[in-house]
Amino acid sequence: MAHVLPSFPLTVGGGRFRAEYYLQGDEATARARAEDICIEQTIEFAPELVPPGGIREHVFGQLEVFERLGPDTHRAIVSYADELVAGELPQLVNVLFGNISMKPGIRLAWLDLSPGVLAAFKGPRFGVAGLRAMLGVPARPLLATAIKPMGLSATHLADMAYALALGGMDLIKDDHGLANQPFAPFEERVARVAEAIARANARTGGRTLYFPNVTGPFEVMWERIQHARQVGATGLLLMPAYCGLDWMRRVAEDDSLALPVMSHPAFIGSYVLDPRFGVSHAVVHGQLQRLAGADLSVLPNYIGRFASYSREDCAGVARGCQAPLGTLRPMFPAPGGGIDVGAFEDMRAVYGPEVTYLMSSNLHRAGPNLTETVQRFRARLEAFVAG
Amino acid sequence: MAHVLPSFPLTVGGGRFRAEYYLQGDEATARARAEDICIEQTIEFAPELVPPGGIREHVFGQLEVFERLGPDTHRAIVSYADELVAGELPQLVNVLFGNISMKPGIRLAWLDLSPGVLAAFKGPRFGVAGLRAMLGVPARPLLATAIKPMGLSATHLADMAYALALGGMDLIKDDHGLANQPFAPFEERVARVAEAIARANARTGGRTLYFPNVTGPFEVMWERIQHARQVGATGLLLMPAYCGLDWMRRVAEDDSLALPVMSHPAFIGSYVLDPRFGVSHAVVHGQLQRLAGADLSVLPNYIGRFASYSREDCAGVARGCQAPLGTLRPMFPAPGGGIDVGAFEDMRAVYGPEVTYLMSSNLHRAGPNLTETVQRFRARLEAFVAG
Repeated sequence: MAHVLPSFPLTVGGGRFRAEYYLQGDEATARARAEDICIEQTIEFAPELVPPGGIREHVFGQLEVFERLGPDTHRAIVSYADELVAGELPQLVNVLFGNISMKPGIRLAWLDLSPGVLAAFKGPRFGVAGLRAMLGVPARPLLATAIKPMGLSATHLADMAYALALGGMDLIKDDHGLANQPFAPFEERVARVAEAIARANARTGGRTLYFPNVTGPFEVMWERIQHARQVGATGLLLMPAYCGLDWMRRVAEDDSLALPVMSHPAFIGSYVLDPRFGVSHAVVHGQLQRLAGADLSVLPNYIGRFASYSREDCAGVARGCQAPLGTLRPMFPAPGGGIDVGAFEDMRAVYGPEVTYLMSSNLHRAGPNLTETVQRFRARLEAFVAG
Repeated sequence: MAHVLPSFPLTVGGGRFRAEYYLQGDEATARARAEDICIEQTIEFAPELVPPGGIREHVFGQLEVFERLGPDTHRAIVSYADELVAGELPQLVNVLFGNISMKPGIRLAWLDLSPGVLAAFKGPRFGVAGLRAMLGVPARPLLATAIKPMGLSATHLADMAYALALGGMDLIKDDHGLANQPFAPFEERVARVAEAIARANARTGGRTLYFPNVTGPFEVMWERIQHARQVGATGLLLMPAYCGLDWMRRVAEDDSLALPVMSHPAFIGSYVLDPRFGVSHAVVHGQLQRLAGADLSVLPNYIGRFASYSREDCAGVARGCQAPLGTLRPMFPAPGGGIDVGAFEDMRAVYGPEVTYLMSSNLHRAGPNLTETVQRFRARLEAFVAG
């Protein structure tokens, strides 16, 4: 004899959202994994103790598609009731991949969200079109860079930013390692760099945007964001693996800020590295960032020092950033990590035309004068789009 | 010709902290990975463009130990200047494993933190001794359970909690899937369950603690925590993969709350599943949770439905929870996921005496009357400790 749950009616609206999973193992193993997802991600409870009726019919995940992709790989689509999510991003991720992240052989591959779930999310405030309008760049790939490294003073970093903006860099972000170190404390750094970029913009008539890296203890995160905006930051760099995807969403949706948001993937790679488990590149670097309101998503490029990402992985991120997702705006993938001018054209073929190239080391390697280097790289981008 | 960084003196205090990494590949490959960590995790920049002096000497990571563990596995210890962390938890994790999370063949295995870094963290407010004192349980393993599943009403969940508390359950938490669904809205659920547990405690003279699951949009997180405390919650369940480790730290350190914190590992498994990359169980479920102030860390047990965790993995978590870490208090590992009474003794051998057993489905399967089942299980725990 066991303790059986009470039986009672349950009212739900009928809307369901779907997630696609890749499952390792032969047919029996993979099917068992699919059925496990339906339970583990919803009731997380002994299913035999759930009486017929409400919970069984509406709360259990439902296996809608199960098919063979290869001898040891299967594909499943599982649907969930919209009500399980309650309009909250953490709970959406929790239903999609919370506990099963701890089980092998299951990969979350793609999200197919319902109107009921999507209604809770505003997505990118600016997106591709909004950023292009801010920058006055209608067609070519955008060019971005990071000021770095840790150890430079705020004045050094501001000088570097000035030289880069003078050359016509579209977006300048802080290195994601710049926090509040004594070398270049947050408030001083952001104020000096924002001022330097504004000065360069005034001189050239350009519109270089500045995305300071805002991290740190939650006690001061909001103050830092306010400070950044007050001293002239025109964007924000956030790292959702540390502050939480939902914090990025909250910042992106804030009308009193109304700043474009760039997400950085630090500490996020362990989700994607092995195709047999974890979460796909398209979801991690694309769909989730977009739901959380990022206008740009930094990712490691398939060429460069992060050779662990393939062309297909990166193309998947572009799909996650730009494939239809309700009324949410498309956003920019921003590949970086050792890319060079020689890769520009091939990268446009992989990511499509709506892409931001993030270059740092190879920009410094390309010549002694940063301003001239940026001018040259920008001209390359303009030429191959026109050509 | 390239753009070389300016040369200038850099003042640092000399304190350094250390991290242990396991590296895949033959000696040359593994050594290249170790050297890459020293650059990627600090300057993330072309090292040849950094002049001799300050940054090169103090900011670069330093490879302190490199040794062979097997034909294709090596071990490295890398040290970093305390100043890189600036006393902030997100930046500590960022230096330890930010960008290299996106590179294959590198696993963060163990943290050996310096006094300078540890000074920034308070760790568990209660820890093992504090929780034992609150509960009046000096020696035996603690018993915990979750009220679930999604779909039950707040009244149903409160009835379940009452029956469990009446039997002498030490800790009752919400299932981590209970957010703010229409079935059992957050405010009503937490108020009803807290009241039911207080009523049971008053009847028995017991001290069952209640850890509601506090999640949701950042716009209301703090209000929900306040509400939980006001209606009588005596602990909090948080999911750092969603709210951020630093948010948990901020909540745990808040003197106006002063509540014990249990961390739940939802969405965290992808870090640990493959020993060739990611982050060790000891760090993910142990050391990081402790730095962030958790008093208990839920993890999948080596016996049960998460068979992906080995005995050694779980013993590692116990070490991460309890090995010396400056003056930070030791905390409880709280293994769950399908464990049963038959596993109690073996689990105590694996985790040591300071452990919390988290049982749900098997507790409901063990008999029709939850109160009697809890009494029986508690007696088992008391007997085998006395015996």
